[in-house]
Amino acid sequence: MSKQLRVGMVGSGYMGKAHAIAYRNAMAAFEISNQSLICDMLADATPELAKQKAAELGFHRSTGDWKELVADPQIDVVDICAPNFLHKDIALAAIASGKHVYSEKPLALSAADAKLMTEAAEAAGVKTLVGFNYIKNPTVQFIKQLIERGELGDIVHFRGVFNEDYLADAAVPFSWRLQKEFAGTGSLNDLGSHLVQLALHLVGPISALCADLKIVHQQRPLEASATNSMAKGQVENDDQAHMMVRFSNGAQGTLETSRVAWGRKNGLSFELTGTKGSVVFDQESLSEFSLYLSGEQPDVQGFKRVLVGPEHPDYAAFCVSAGHGLGFNDMKAVEIRDLYEGIVHGQALWPDFRAAAQVNVILDDVLKSYEGNAWVKVEQYDGDQ
Amino acid sequence: MSKQLRVGMVGSGYMGKAHAIAYRNAMAAFEISNQSLICDMLADATPELAKQKAAELGFHRSTGDWKELVADPQIDVVDICAPNFLHKDIALAAIASGKHVYSEKPLALSAADAKLMTEAAEAAGVKTLVGFNYIKNPTVQFIKQLIERGELGDIVHFRGVFNEDYLADAAVPFSWRLQKEFAGTGSLNDLGSHLVQLALHLVGPISALCADLKIVHQQRPLEASATNSMAKGQVENDDQAHMMVRFSNGAQGTLETSRVAWGRKNGLSFELTGTKGSVVFDQESLSEFSLYLSGEQPDVQGFKRVLVGPEHPDYAAFCVSAGHGLGFNDMKAVEIRDLYEGIVHGQALWPDFRAAAQVNVILDDVLKSYEGNAWVKVEQYDGDQ
Amino acid sequence: MSKQLRVGMVGSGYMGKAHAIAYRNAMAAFEISNQSLICDMLADATPELAKQKAAELGFHRSTGDWKELVADPQIDVVDICAPNFLHKDIALAAIASGKHVYSEKPLALSAADAKLMTEAAEAAGVKTLVGFNYIKNPTVQFIKQLIERGELGDIVHFRGVFNEDYLADAAVPFSWRLQKEFAGTGSLNDLGSHLVQLALHLVGPISALCADLKIVHQQRPLEASATNSMAKGQVENDDQAHMMVRFSNGAQGTLETSRVAWGRKNGLSFELTGTKGSVVFDQESLSEFSLYLSGEQPDVQGFKRVLVGPEHPDYAAFCVSAGHGLGFNDMKAVEIRDLYEGIVHGQALWPDFRAAAQVNVILDDVLKSYEGNAWVKVEQYDGDQ
Amino acid sequence: MSKQLRVGMVGSGYMGKAHAIAYRNAMAAFEISNQSLICDMLADATPELAKQKAAELGFHRSTGDWKELVADPQIDVVDICAPNFLHKDIALAAIASGKHVYSEKPLALSAADAKLMTEAAEAAGVKTLVGFNYIKNPTVQFIKQLIERGELGDIVHFRGVFNEDYLADAAVPFSWRLQKEFAGTGSLNDLGSHLVQLALHLVGPISALCADLKIVHQQRPLEASATNSMAKGQVENDDQAHMMVRFSNGAQGTLETSRVAWGRKNGLSFELTGTKGSVVFDQESLSEFSLYLSGEQPDVQGFKRVLVGPEHPDYAAFCVSAGHGLGFNDMKAVEIRDLYEGIVHGQALWPDFRAAAQVNVILDDVLKSYEGNAWVKVEQYDGDQ
Repeated sequence: MSKQLRVGMVGSGYMGKAHAIAYRNAMAAFEISNQSLICDMLADATPELAKQKAAELGFHRSTGDWKELVADPQIDVVDICAPNFLHKDIALAAIASGKHVYSEKPLALSAADAKLMTEAAEAAGVKTLVGFNYIKNPTVQFIKQLIERGELGDIVHFRGVFNEDYLADAAVPFSWRLQKEFAGTGSLNDLGSHLVQLALHLVGPISALCADLKIVHQQRPLEASATNSMAKGQVENDDQAHMMVRFSNGAQGTLETSRVAWGRKNGLSFELTGTKGSVVFDQESLSEFSLYLSGEQPDVQGFKRVLVGPEHPDYAAFCVSAGHGLGFNDMKAVEIRDLYEGIVHGQALWPDFRAAAQVNVILDDVLKSYEGNAWVKVEQYDGDQ
Repeated sequence: MSKQLRVGMVGSGYMGKAHAIAYRNAMAAFEISNQSLICDMLADATPELAKQKAAELGFHRSTGDWKELVADPQIDVVDICAPNFLHKDIALAAIASGKHVYSEKPLALSAADAKLMTEAAEAAGVKTLVGFNYIKNPTVQFIKQLIERGELGDIVHFRGVFNEDYLADAAVPFSWRLQKEFAGTGSLNDLGSHLVQLALHLVGPISALCADLKIVHQQRPLEASATNSMAKGQVENDDQAHMMVRFSNGAQGTLETSRVAWGRKNGLSFELTGTKGSVVFDQESLSEFSLYLSGEQPDVQGFKRVLVGPEHPDYAAFCVSAGHGLGFNDMKAVEIRDLYEGIVHGQALWPDFRAAAQVNVILDDVLKSYEGNAWVKVEQYDGDQ
Repeated sequence: MSKQLRVGMVGSGYMGKAHAIAYRNAMAAFEISNQSLICDMLADATPELAKQKAAELGFHRSTGDWKELVADPQIDVVDICAPNFLHKDIALAAIASGKHVYSEKPLALSAADAKLMTEAAEAAGVKTLVGFNYIKNPTVQFIKQLIERGELGDIVHFRGVFNEDYLADAAVPFSWRLQKEFAGTGSLNDLGSHLVQLALHLVGPISALCADLKIVHQQRPLEASATNSMAKGQVENDDQAHMMVRFSNGAQGTLETSRVAWGRKNGLSFELTGTKGSVVFDQESLSEFSLYLSGEQPDVQGFKRVLVGPEHPDYAAFCVSAGHGLGFNDMKAVEIRDLYEGIVHGQALWPDFRAAAQVNVILDDVLKSYEGNAWVKVEQYDGDQ
Repeated sequence: MSKQLRVGMVGSGYMGKAHAIAYRNAMAAFEISNQSLICDMLADATPELAKQKAAELGFHRSTGDWKELVADPQIDVVDICAPNFLHKDIALAAIASGKHVYSEKPLALSAADAKLMTEAAEAAGVKTLVGFNYIKNPTVQFIKQLIERGELGDIVHFRGVFNEDYLADAAVPFSWRLQKEFAGTGSLNDLGSHLVQLALHLVGPISALCADLKIVHQQRPLEASATNSMAKGQVENDDQAHMMVRFSNGAQGTLETSRVAWGRKNGLSFELTGTKGSVVFDQESLSEFSLYLSGEQPDVQGFKRVLVGPEHPDYAAFCVSAGHGLGFNDMKAVEIRDLYEGIVHGQALWPDFRAAAQVNVILDDVLKSYEGNAWVKVEQYDGDQ
């Protein structure tokens, strides 16, 4: 059938399960039949694991070898939920097989890799999508519309913070996440990639930046070290990261991330200031935002708490009543809808590899700025938006 | 297969779609295969509508006659999403066919009907479940655990409010919701049934109550009245309802509902006070609650905002990280999981028809109290909990 | 001088100190010279205590006998900060001496006493003011203006709560506050009097009510009981109180108080619903309120958090910049300004003894309703407002 | 008398009135008699204005020449509420007359001036105090205690924001505030001086910084320009300022200010992260803070909203009950108490000129960093704290 999309997913961990939920949620919410969007094959480390997970997550077929999956002629799109350092190889192989690619973020561990992947995909003419799911939230979609409608005037400031506390406890053991080879940077790659993408998406290109990084806990205990319980691993990447940015349109901003910020669980928040108003958003209360519009009667001015509802983009697919609250997984369902609709109708996907590569360019520049203690001019890899 | 459950759903409107989303969401989150939980047949008003909706909502078969559905030998459980005034006939027919029954709330328009349904189901030995979904929220499940653990001490007070504004605008036209024959009471049945069930669930039996009702907008315009644009319908049921309650365990409470409370969208909130601490919950921020525990160091005492996470019941099925926020539809998925697990493993379902009939008993007593301007002693239909 | 007001204050405890702060704060904020408003004499239990407190609190003269103070020809107004059960005798003596009277709340322990005091004052032609300070808050003053301007439409609902936790700990010892003879009712007199006055002030006369009371901790330890550490005192008045009310204008309401509500420190809050909008206020955040106005663009509707500022009544006397936050004591300074201005310019004071007596009428009716388990029609002692 | 302090105040505008309120408030709250703390003389631009303001604000004497005031032998301390650019001359003259000096912030328009003033005061042996009032808030005092007690562990991050919207409207006319000569920097001097002082006070010395500034509205209309209504003034100083900082103790931070941030009225907020917990404070809710302490039971962890009360520093002087809320002016009263107690008991005042000069050093470095597009190492003028 012309409107059918067959998915092959690589990886069944945290994000794999989130994707599995999202596929079914998207089908139900957006009324896509399971003859149209097909969770076809799952690849994981071993055939046994893959088989078990396929049954649990609702995939028809399974394989212990992702290369088999990307080569399978039935598969239309390869969904990469594997660890970050594998994104490149899987994506390039999928592209070489003419598959569309849907990858989790960050796209790559370096700008060079991300560009390579982008150019391969563009040369092959396949569609790409990267899982920056926070911009799919109806609340954030609507904030973008407010900006585009001009209701906030010219944007003059963006402050973004993405803090969590998953490594705040110094006793959390050493792992691959703390090694440059496997993870690249630390909080920056994990959390900062989302924040940078959000800033670009809402405000526009970043022309220059100056950054600072910090490893708060220099060493962490090695897990299950039988011979020496005092053995420590040396942490190689940032627990905290800051940057000051200048946008091409003249706006200023600060972006901050931390993985050691006690009390923050999904602490992505931002405040956008324009010449006509302001918006505040906090992902820990994802179904609402605060809005201040200038020009109201002075004695009743204030930040308004707007609960997301059917007046806002994509909400009504989930619920017809306002204030009923969407969840984290619902954002991912919107992303899946975009994937399906974009591919079957031949429309552009957003954010694609090129847009995601721009994020990697900026993350590389952060390191460069930190190492050089200096401002860095940012390459505009994705052109003007 | 022994663990297979085949569902026949009646109705495909607002709640029908919510159920359809929830079935798929439950399967993905709780890893129930679609060979085990089967969305088999959908009934709606006409064969054409039923067929179209079955395709959209992911049901295999359809029918324009719910009687055919309840009689179908393949169906294990009948899921009633039809308008409230039809619950009774459909449920009784399903029970007569030996089907388990899953009904939306309120169970019936009167205590008498609810008791009849309860007794029929119990006599037939079928399992029943009523869709009081708010108690399925991991946040609310956890609050119940806190009470049971004794962390709040003896509960001495419950204040519950369920306010929305869907009829706040006096220009909203007249409809069946405003007529006793089709809707029974107004805000009381629609919102109050949830609130009463929540109070019973968290605090225990209500022994006496005193209530007050109010129709705020006495008349509403008749929709599309071609001959007379000034024609008005007379509103027959409450826009606002109050009750003071006394619980069997000595606690006191107040319950309030309104469908004309400007600004409230899903405004179900409660504050529970015990001899050792307090809890505050607000459904418009459904993935968190506030907790005050006595006995802490005086200079750092305060209400703590707890974000729901994998430490709390059922959350981890949806997400392994705290603070990521569940949505309204996720609560319904927990309900579906309960339905599936309960039936296939022969466990009790909660809240069943008897528990729901107790809610109807109380709603009837509210009317009695209002009409008599007096306190009413409440019949304990569901016995001690 | 014609515009001079000499104050004699009786009592120098908690409220006495608050008044002392307020006199100086009022003079500074409202630019009343200390030649115009004179803290002249302080009376307390003994001459020594009175002398010491007069020096600390800034009064020129002192006495150990309040009868001397009320008889002093220099005194223009008697400010009663003595315990509640003394209000009546002091006020009647002051009135008999032709003094204006400024009394803390509640005015009396019974409606009969309050009426007696009211009629004595009116017969003598002296001015009276009762310290229901919460309505002096610029925020609350402005909410009253919003209602009067019609911006909320017709008020259809008022929910008021005044909860604190000063007796939540069962180990807090027995005291005069728990005895009917000295305190009258419990949370009702202490907190409920404010709440009732606020409801009357904002919504209008209450025509009928139905109430429920509860003693949560029946006994409390006797303090410093040398002979028997297990000795307990029997608590005689309410820890919690509820009432449902019907206002003369058709609005409905619920009022609740508790002195055993863990976590609430100055937990006076209310939500007002009108046919055009809603207001929410919480005294624990006294310099802001939330406002929902219907009729706004649907996608940016929500409760607006308005910070009090110079656009609002009386704020600018304290600060010219918005959002700087007033404190509890500042409300009392507004009350003092009202006292001073009202007396020296011969204007009416609000709320006067008659208005305060209406509160006592309602508090008496609460007891009557509770004892009779019935609705009670409320006498309109203060006429239509 | 030995414990008497006679104040001479220069300036009676916004801050002059705030000081006048604070003197009386401090006397009442802290029970300092008006024989001990004497508002003696007020200087303003003309004898007439000074006389009128002295009467309004409660000063005994007045003068149209501040030089007369600083030379008056009766005056013990000179309180400088004059515009910023006059601080230096007045302070130096007061010091030369052997007076103690209490100055509003920022101390000077440059570090060089601030150092000159500091060294003059130290050479003369007079005491100095600068009006960084936000650290006098009982809430902030307590946060400092929490840090000192070690309850937050080692501080690893500080994010401070001080945003207001007083110039957000592009139509606000040109004024001296926008000129370097009279105001120095813009949001940086006005708001940033507070923020820098707060960061130093809570976290410790800043060793290096990198900053960015922005003029959002380049031109503003000239007020009352009769000849040309289109005439514009060129804005010379920052509407927005950012800095990344590195503290000597290894902590990192970001500080931001804006005077064009729609919706922020007194938007001073900070989040402090330590290795054991976090604190969040927002001046727009000045009588509370949020606290997250690690190590609690995982299922009831969260940020706790602590209302300031008598357990916290200096609160009980204003009110004996928790949660009653202090106001902006009450912080200033604490500052006055510090001034009085420090001088009459010969104790150190904090923050003194040297501490305030350190703030000026940092503000100068911000400009240097911005102009050089580079990190700047900060001189430790006030030594180790």
